[in-house]
Amino acid sequence: MSYRIPIIFDTDIGVDDAFALLLAAGNPSIDILGITTVFGNNSVDNCTENALRVCELLDLDVPVAKGARKSLFGEEKDYTLHKNNFVHGEDGLGGKRYMLKDPRKKVEDCDAVDLIARLVRRSDEKVVLVPVGPLTNIAMFLLTYPELKSQIDGIALMGGAAYGGNYLPLAEANIANDPEAAKIVFQSGLKIVMCGLDATEKAMLSKDDREMLRVVGGSIGTFYYDMVKDYVTVSERFDPNRLGPCLHDSVPVAWLINPDIVKTEPCHVEVDIVGQYSKACTVTDVLCRDNKPNAMVAFDLNREEFIKLHLDALKWLNRNQ
Amino acid sequence: MSYRIPIIFDTDIGVDDAFALLLAAGNPSIDILGITTVFGNNSVDNCTENALRVCELLDLDVPVAKGARKSLFGEEKDYTLHKNNFVHGEDGLGGKRYMLKDPRKKVEDCDAVDLIARLVRRSDEKVVLVPVGPLTNIAMFLLTYPELKSQIDGIALMGGAAYGGNYLPLAEANIANDPEAAKIVFQSGLKIVMCGLDATEKAMLSKDDREMLRVVGGSIGTFYYDMVKDYVTVSERFDPNRLGPCLHDSVPVAWLINPDIVKTEPCHVEVDIVGQYSKACTVTDVLCRDNKPNAMVAFDLNREEFIKLHLDALKWLNRNQ
Amino acid sequence: MSYRIPIIFDTDIGVDDAFALLLAAGNPSIDILGITTVFGNNSVDNCTENALRVCELLDLDVPVAKGARKSLFGEEKDYTLHKNNFVHGEDGLGGKRYMLKDPRKKVEDCDAVDLIARLVRRSDEKVVLVPVGPLTNIAMFLLTYPELKSQIDGIALMGGAAYGGNYLPLAEANIANDPEAAKIVFQSGLKIVMCGLDATEKAMLSKDDREMLRVVGGSIGTFYYDMVKDYVTVSERFDPNRLGPCLHDSVPVAWLINPDIVKTEPCHVEVDIVGQYSKACTVTDVLCRDNKPNAMVAFDLNREEFIKLHLDALKWLNRNQ
Amino acid sequence: MSYRIPIIFDTDIGVDDAFALLLAAGNPSIDILGITTVFGNNSVDNCTENALRVCELLDLDVPVAKGARKSLFGEEKDYTLHKNNFVHGEDGLGGKRYMLKDPRKKVEDCDAVDLIARLVRRSDEKVVLVPVGPLTNIAMFLLTYPELKSQIDGIALMGGAAYGGNYLPLAEANIANDPEAAKIVFQSGLKIVMCGLDATEKAMLSKDDREMLRVVGGSIGTFYYDMVKDYVTVSERFDPNRLGPCLHDSVPVAWLINPDIVKTEPCHVEVDIVGQYSKACTVTDVLCRDNKPNAMVAFDLNREEFIKLHLDALKWLNRNQ
Repeated sequence: MSYRIPIIFDTDIGVDDAFALLLAAGNPSIDILGITTVFGNNSVDNCTENALRVCELLDLDVPVAKGARKSLFGEEKDYTLHKNNFVHGEDGLGGKRYMLKDPRKKVEDCDAVDLIARLVRRSDEKVVLVPVGPLTNIAMFLLTYPELKSQIDGIALMGGAAYGGNYLPLAEANIANDPEAAKIVFQSGLKIVMCGLDATEKAMLSKDDREMLRVVGGSIGTFYYDMVKDYVTVSERFDPNRLGPCLHDSVPVAWLINPDIVKTEPCHVEVDIVGQYSKACTVTDVLCRDNKPNAMVAFDLNREEFIKLHLDALKWLNRNQ
Repeated sequence: MSYRIPIIFDTDIGVDDAFALLLAAGNPSIDILGITTVFGNNSVDNCTENALRVCELLDLDVPVAKGARKSLFGEEKDYTLHKNNFVHGEDGLGGKRYMLKDPRKKVEDCDAVDLIARLVRRSDEKVVLVPVGPLTNIAMFLLTYPELKSQIDGIALMGGAAYGGNYLPLAEANIANDPEAAKIVFQSGLKIVMCGLDATEKAMLSKDDREMLRVVGGSIGTFYYDMVKDYVTVSERFDPNRLGPCLHDSVPVAWLINPDIVKTEPCHVEVDIVGQYSKACTVTDVLCRDNKPNAMVAFDLNREEFIKLHLDALKWLNRNQ
Repeated sequence: MSYRIPIIFDTDIGVDDAFALLLAAGNPSIDILGITTVFGNNSVDNCTENALRVCELLDLDVPVAKGARKSLFGEEKDYTLHKNNFVHGEDGLGGKRYMLKDPRKKVEDCDAVDLIARLVRRSDEKVVLVPVGPLTNIAMFLLTYPELKSQIDGIALMGGAAYGGNYLPLAEANIANDPEAAKIVFQSGLKIVMCGLDATEKAMLSKDDREMLRVVGGSIGTFYYDMVKDYVTVSERFDPNRLGPCLHDSVPVAWLINPDIVKTEPCHVEVDIVGQYSKACTVTDVLCRDNKPNAMVAFDLNREEFIKLHLDALKWLNRNQ
Repeated sequence: MSYRIPIIFDTDIGVDDAFALLLAAGNPSIDILGITTVFGNNSVDNCTENALRVCELLDLDVPVAKGARKSLFGEEKDYTLHKNNFVHGEDGLGGKRYMLKDPRKKVEDCDAVDLIARLVRRSDEKVVLVPVGPLTNIAMFLLTYPELKSQIDGIALMGGAAYGGNYLPLAEANIANDPEAAKIVFQSGLKIVMCGLDATEKAMLSKDDREMLRVVGGSIGTFYYDMVKDYVTVSERFDPNRLGPCLHDSVPVAWLINPDIVKTEPCHVEVDIVGQYSKACTVTDVLCRDNKPNAMVAFDLNREEFIKLHLDALKWLNRNQ
């Protein structure tokens, strides 16, 4: 057991990813070794730009490497026409990227998979991978460097669902974006914490919470307050009665900080890559009928504590500024 | 609109099917034209025997015809070894079939599909099919008599789930028993009311309810009280905290009697017959992303009213005895 | 062993089906009990009309019943736009149906499946089914009357291929028209002789052969000579170097008459109904790696003897006229 | 156009792979930039050892890097129990590896994928990839270094079949060993020459040819003569009437040397990764019904010229010794 948990944060950084990065960067128990980017909420080029700018805002000095442009088996998408744009804005940060300063930091020379390998090799302790986008980089890392698997402590991811989906009736967007990669990750034998829609749809950011961003958050909080505005609007359009939009990608980070906040159960999860209407479904056997558990699956969370972690992170980051 | 709804009840009659038949037989708004049997909870031979004996008990004089021994694409199962035995008992009626008198009625000469056709042809009004077992007979009827489709008012069925499953993580037992038949039914273009696990797992029969069977039910109620005993035990083994076992198969009958009791929503449902881990899943698109609704899907029910319907049926049947 | 083999001829009667019917009707060792029709080369309505008219021409007095309009899982096709029209002509008989007299015979009241059942029940001997179109009727018969399986001697069919396809790279047209029905037939446990493209593409009718139709065939031969003209043209368009068009559907009939003419090997055949690019493929394991043979598969034929059988049939039919 | 074609030879080196390497090493028009190894005929460890020893024998001084231990989606196999052992011998070289000297050369530090990248980057001309085993390394290279695709002139591979298979009825062994990798390669958009069983089963090495190995081949020829002995025995067991065993893996090399020797046709090829009985089939549309050609597919070869190339290579290599 160690004082700080070394993680690599793998992200298609959009609005909720930015909250997850804030949470990881602002919590003393998390040690971000590096950030890798991936297509998903936006093109990998835009996501990389976003990662660099959010790092600058958070004063986070870690290596950032660009990863997969497309899924293992798919074609590259045209993000100028992409339907996620209306969720995360055309720039992936709620249309507010222009407010962020040009980053001093440059993207690494090597690609995401090689950065992961380098950071894992260098680390004295086993590393936790925290992917909150499509699992392409992680699958490629496992395929390219099987000998480094023993240096991975586990994978705490945002993706999938035991029940239902969002992108499709049975498919959550991250898994739907690269189901074959997800299959490779789930059958890797590594410890997996799957923070899927069952829990993340309870990770709502209320109106009061949003006000608090501004109150306690200084310039960082103000940016987040602005960035989340359109994301709120989209969320309300879907369901006017809910408390607010969901901070999906923060859930695996919150679990790492304090597992009590996120309720998990051991399950057997298989990714269906064959189904006609159920492709990309994370088929979750809660009863583990014929198989042993291969993942801890999140089903619930303590929303108040979860939001408080974010505000604490904001305060901590501001104290340093 | 007519005074009584003409239905054909298609059943692999086990414990909860017997409750559904009680409810249909004891409600003046339902006109049972005939009963057809199918493999599922037990062999079709045992289910046919059960149907005849329960009809005798309920003093229900309608034609009973035997249907499919096996699914469209599968092999016949050996029910002496079948895992459902511990749910519905070896005889399919909670081990209490011996308490029922020998039936005076004989099974029809023709098979289930032909009985359905005959009854539909004879009926002045359009008929509602109420299948509460695997959908093999119904699919065969649709394939054999496409010209009679226009005489079917709709199909109110027990089966499937929008979220989760029971037989498998994503498969409910009736659909799992013949997924290809289910696919044929759901793509038939007929009006479908799918009463799946989302609603039927709320159709619990509490301890107090069970006592009431005896109190208001006369000899019929006493039989049902005894029949349900082992079914209660199995249910408690699965989940000791729940109110009691579920009367799954009564839900479509209850909906026919009073649609207010069962809350439904229009959805697009596709049966996946291809998925590796999700075969037999009734993939339910609540948002109808790319397709029009093809089914009303039950998501909730008023348990008190639902149970009251059963007690009312019992009283009504006893009044006649 | 008996003097004559009782068969039921199941057909989507187009040009080569008409030759197969000629061969069966004109050979004393074949006893046609009845004819059932199915969609495929044309709509089932047109095919039924064709069957009646060809029977009139051949002076063949057997019951004709109409069967499936569409495949088990598919939609009914619009044959006015159908691509097979250019192969078999818009009327299914090379544009020459108008030359045939109005039939005196009417189609049966019952449908194809019930006619098969009636004929099988009535027959003193086991019956051979000879389907030369999509296998929908045969699959429905097996599903509807499992108890009559023991009265079937076997199924000699035209369909499939061990290597390649015609409708698709790996799919022959009859199987492609209803792959699920084919699966049901091949897994029925009945003896199957699969006359697929491996053999039937060798069943060519040469220019000289066609002349002989007229020479030996009287009015019947003249009609066949005319009917086949456009079929020749289409065949030459595909491959100008081949000897002539193929009489695919006659191959199972020829095998019944004289198994020496068609070379078969025991194989294990599975119909793939799942493959993305290989759906409807009759996957043929010649080496029977993991499974026992479930079909005799035709790989070659003696073309001269095969054609001679047709001319003999013509002569025999004319002798009676 | 250039004097010599720069290739990277990717191999699960067994008996016929060793012939292919001989052919490439001994032909002045081929410039082997490097060799990468992959699991398949044997474990990747054994295949790497084999590659180094055969290089020593052939006096071939090129970098050798070890590649994939297993397929993208599969588990690592236990080759001590593997059924290919009886084809290629327990050591992968017909049980004759012990005859080869310890190699002076060591395997590269980097893995196969990185060696391919390095060699491609360094080359002045576009490089041809020549994989004769499972396509895992090639798929990983395409996924890892998409930016190097423009430096690849094409892929001349041994694998697949337009008709039939060997490992399974519709699957050739290299494709069966990693169907998903094959799919990635075939949909890469690169020029592909598929030398599958249609052509390679005609690449037989006759008894006389084998004698010639010894006559013209010096110490190298003598080793090949000995190595191939058991491979001959296995081949005869399968089919006693054939001329001799097949030199499958030499076919793409022969095509590179002289395209006239191998007859190819433009086709559209899709790898089915979903089919129940047809998984790993290279579904080959010779008519290109709905799609443009994406591969040149080999259907025939000039056996005499093909064998002569091998003898010429032997002579050339011996001249240098």
